[in-house]
Amino acid sequence: MSHYYRLVVSCPDRVGIVSRVSGFIAGHGGSITEASQHSDLETGRFFMRYEILADSINMPPEALREAFAPIAEEFDMTWALTDTRQRPRVVLMVSRESHCLVDLLYRWTAGELDCDIAAVISNHETMRGLAEWHGIPYHHVPVDPADKQPAFDEVARLVEELRADCVVLARYMQILPPALCERYAGRVINIHHSFLPSFAGAKPYHQAYERGVKLIGATCHYVTEELDAGPIIEQDIHRVSHCHTPDDLVRFGRDVEKAVLARGLRWHLQDRVLIHGNKTVVFA
Amino acid sequence: MSHYYRLVVSCPDRVGIVSRVSGFIAGHGGSITEASQHSDLETGRFFMRYEILADSINMPPEALREAFAPIAEEFDMTWALTDTRQRPRVVLMVSRESHCLVDLLYRWTAGELDCDIAAVISNHETMRGLAEWHGIPYHHVPVDPADKQPAFDEVARLVEELRADCVVLARYMQILPPALCERYAGRVINIHHSFLPSFAGAKPYHQAYERGVKLIGATCHYVTEELDAGPIIEQDIHRVSHCHTPDDLVRFGRDVEKAVLARGLRWHLQDRVLIHGNKTVVFA
Amino acid sequence: MSHYYRLVVSCPDRVGIVSRVSGFIAGHGGSITEASQHSDLETGRFFMRYEILADSINMPPEALREAFAPIAEEFDMTWALTDTRQRPRVVLMVSRESHCLVDLLYRWTAGELDCDIAAVISNHETMRGLAEWHGIPYHHVPVDPADKQPAFDEVARLVEELRADCVVLARYMQILPPALCERYAGRVINIHHSFLPSFAGAKPYHQAYERGVKLIGATCHYVTEELDAGPIIEQDIHRVSHCHTPDDLVRFGRDVEKAVLARGLRWHLQDRVLIHGNKTVVFA
Amino acid sequence: MSHYYRLVVSCPDRVGIVSRVSGFIAGHGGSITEASQHSDLETGRFFMRYEILADSINMPPEALREAFAPIAEEFDMTWALTDTRQRPRVVLMVSRESHCLVDLLYRWTAGELDCDIAAVISNHETMRGLAEWHGIPYHHVPVDPADKQPAFDEVARLVEELRADCVVLARYMQILPPALCERYAGRVINIHHSFLPSFAGAKPYHQAYERGVKLIGATCHYVTEELDAGPIIEQDIHRVSHCHTPDDLVRFGRDVEKAVLARGLRWHLQDRVLIHGNKTVVFA
Repeated sequence: MSHYYRLVVSCPDRVGIVSRVSGFIAGHGGSITEASQHSDLETGRFFMRYEILADSINMPPEALREAFAPIAEEFDMTWALTDTRQRPRVVLMVSRESHCLVDLLYRWTAGELDCDIAAVISNHETMRGLAEWHGIPYHHVPVDPADKQPAFDEVARLVEELRADCVVLARYMQILPPALCERYAGRVINIHHSFLPSFAGAKPYHQAYERGVKLIGATCHYVTEELDAGPIIEQDIHRVSHCHTPDDLVRFGRDVEKAVLARGLRWHLQDRVLIHGNKTVVFA
Repeated sequence: MSHYYRLVVSCPDRVGIVSRVSGFIAGHGGSITEASQHSDLETGRFFMRYEILADSINMPPEALREAFAPIAEEFDMTWALTDTRQRPRVVLMVSRESHCLVDLLYRWTAGELDCDIAAVISNHETMRGLAEWHGIPYHHVPVDPADKQPAFDEVARLVEELRADCVVLARYMQILPPALCERYAGRVINIHHSFLPSFAGAKPYHQAYERGVKLIGATCHYVTEELDAGPIIEQDIHRVSHCHTPDDLVRFGRDVEKAVLARGLRWHLQDRVLIHGNKTVVFA
Repeated sequence: MSHYYRLVVSCPDRVGIVSRVSGFIAGHGGSITEASQHSDLETGRFFMRYEILADSINMPPEALREAFAPIAEEFDMTWALTDTRQRPRVVLMVSRESHCLVDLLYRWTAGELDCDIAAVISNHETMRGLAEWHGIPYHHVPVDPADKQPAFDEVARLVEELRADCVVLARYMQILPPALCERYAGRVINIHHSFLPSFAGAKPYHQAYERGVKLIGATCHYVTEELDAGPIIEQDIHRVSHCHTPDDLVRFGRDVEKAVLARGLRWHLQDRVLIHGNKTVVFA
Repeated sequence: MSHYYRLVVSCPDRVGIVSRVSGFIAGHGGSITEASQHSDLETGRFFMRYEILADSINMPPEALREAFAPIAEEFDMTWALTDTRQRPRVVLMVSRESHCLVDLLYRWTAGELDCDIAAVISNHETMRGLAEWHGIPYHHVPVDPADKQPAFDEVARLVEELRADCVVLARYMQILPPALCERYAGRVINIHHSFLPSFAGAKPYHQAYERGVKLIGATCHYVTEELDAGPIIEQDIHRVSHCHTPDDLVRFGRDVEKAVLARGLRWHLQDRVLIHGNKTVVFA
């Protein structure tokens, strides 16, 4: 199977960026198989993502990065060049609800998620069988409501030890401590079970039911210190009516949650999501 | 063309309501062409709506109402029996944005809205040509920002004089005074340009843009004293991305707004919307 | 947990059916928790479905059926009265694609599908591990392309032996023989991976790709002798663009297929789907 | 208001195209505000569209075209460079159904369609008032069912005389003769009232009703000699159920048709639609 280099750039917009970058790639014989650009007219910032057939460039990624560095400096770029052979390592965190975990493990098995799943961490034992059936290590880290810090320290230690590139809160139902959020900024993905900014916080489906909305939703976002307020990656909705009880909302919501999380995670793993302040550019 | 009686009922739920009501109708030879029921398990309230072929019942609506009254009393019903030959009178209120007005007038012309449009009232002259081309009287009631009361008094006077059954705020952009809201409770329909409860208040598309949501929406609801907090009739959304400027959001939003308002109004005019506390039962 | 009786009726439409049926139920003290009716104006046929709290009726289902029979005869009804304690027995048939099976087993585990899964039958060994991990018997019935009849005979024998109420072709990829279709008419559910009637037959995603459609879909339908032509229960779509390869269409399609099949099966199991010629009435 | 140059290119894919084109634009100081590219891996064809701030380039479009021609030749490009100050001239053709015309005229008035509307041509007088109220010339060209050729000759003459860049069949309900289709290949846009390839030909909503589909749709496509078989630009759907009569399908369909046609036309007018065999690349 072919592998690819992915060049992801953001920088102040000005004339000549595309010319310079595409000229560099063409100069090395690089065959671009997918190209995306975006100029944010309000902030004057430019974003781009190139997918390049690795075999068309006669260079390892380190050498290519070194060769590109002067251009990046000249244009004041925030950038990364990844190699699809280096699969990112993902840690999944769950609580007692299985729908997101079942879905992510299926998609991973089906080849929809280009990553290694390093482990599942949970505050309960409930999902051990499922994880282990998929051959994935399971870490049970109980959280003491009276003193959550030891548990979070253990989670931080595990994430470090597992060399995670990305942590997915697949209905973890615990609020991560600020230190962990900061340390893994832009690499912790959460699924919130409402169409944010509506119904942030606890029991969103019951809030939605009480308000009598006609659509419920889910939001996949990067975790930041402020609860449910980080950059949104993806959202979707499901239609409801007066016929539906809170239990029905929960049931429909599960489908929306898992779909939205799977899309958001897939895009993140493919370097399609660029953070821009508290928003995202998603080259889906 | 056939005409219909519509019987709309809400009452405390108990065994035998459907039997009693359908028995009453069958007893008068009534042919039911559409029937909808809903039991709200949480509040123990029951809702029903029957559409009955008028020609199958050998009685004018007044007589039928009189015959039904004892049953209504027995079951402690809130109820209404309408005759589709009595077309409701609607007053449309607009400001300078034309999309909802154009859409409603088209649908009215196409026979999608079973009502008479008594008049268009606006705080601007902008839409006069459009309204009058459709043969609809236009009332310009300018609003003085320093003292809005005289304008609202005039609006109230007009609505009264026009014998309106329903007032539609089709992007009117002014907050109605509490007295008017109360007097026409359950009969004033507003279109709000966000997916409530997100982004209540002013400039919702700009709020949505700032938050970086991936879906924008619109909400059709009954107006109550509390701004943007009345019972929701209908909502819908449109997908957006980082590519879209606030102007694009406004453009997409116009399409959602007019679709949502048209559906909500159509259902209201067909007696399909029953208010239940701060929520609605919609027999769509 | 409460259990329910479900009364499902179709008959020639005439005045008094609802009154008679609801009167019968009220006469036995029955508390109706959900009621749906439909009059097909074109064919003059009437459909209804009542969900009745079993505890409100002091009678076993057999006695209730016996008491109702004269009414059914009087109105020339096709009818059934089911008891939710009698869970239908479902046989799932699959080939090598796992997405529908994974999804159905998850939903069954989560309590979304009110049935017993009697067995999984497949023409391959691939899914054995998955089925057995869920505690479900697995039958491998290989199909010899040169002579399929022995396999189908074995399938027929198994379905009989397993006392299946419903057979689900969850991407089985084999055409059932006419005799089996006829014997289980209205009880065999298939998921077709296109928005029927477009792209019937083989490789629908590739057909869709070649035609350049902008939406792909899936269709859940009852199996009849004519391939992909049976009564449609449910359909849905996913947006695609020029960016997407046939593989992407297959990937998106899997999500639509499993969602559509799950909804269709859930409704079937809840007696919400009434066949009407080659169409369905779905009281969703 | 700023104006733009739009460079639209398709050519055989090879290394260095983007570099060469973006280098050319940067060499003239051109500021790219929007860029889209697509490599079709199956056919090896490359597509691109650049939107360039005209003021950033110190050259009229003719000179820029002349300067670009050698590059186009070198890469064997099919290409065009348009100037947004040259508004395309559109002719709308309608029959007796007004929904698409009302919608397009509203959007044109609201500034959503960057074009001049040269005229409305119809085989009926019905829409004259509407067109003329918008200040648009109306040509009534009746079609004699016994001999349609004179009418089509007159239409061809008018389209020529009006110097139309684009002809929109906004529910024209007549089949254009092959000669006209060929002459205006890629410039005649039709709205078909089904989700093609389902229900091509006449009365698609009735075909859909008979088949019992659960979604109806509409398709915007370029007209070719083969009826309803040209390259698809856009499609969308609306959910229906057993409750809905053929008239309801027609009513829902109107909303889908006008939305789909408006999107397709807007994209066409913005040079976002590139024809690729019998398919389209849409840089929406």
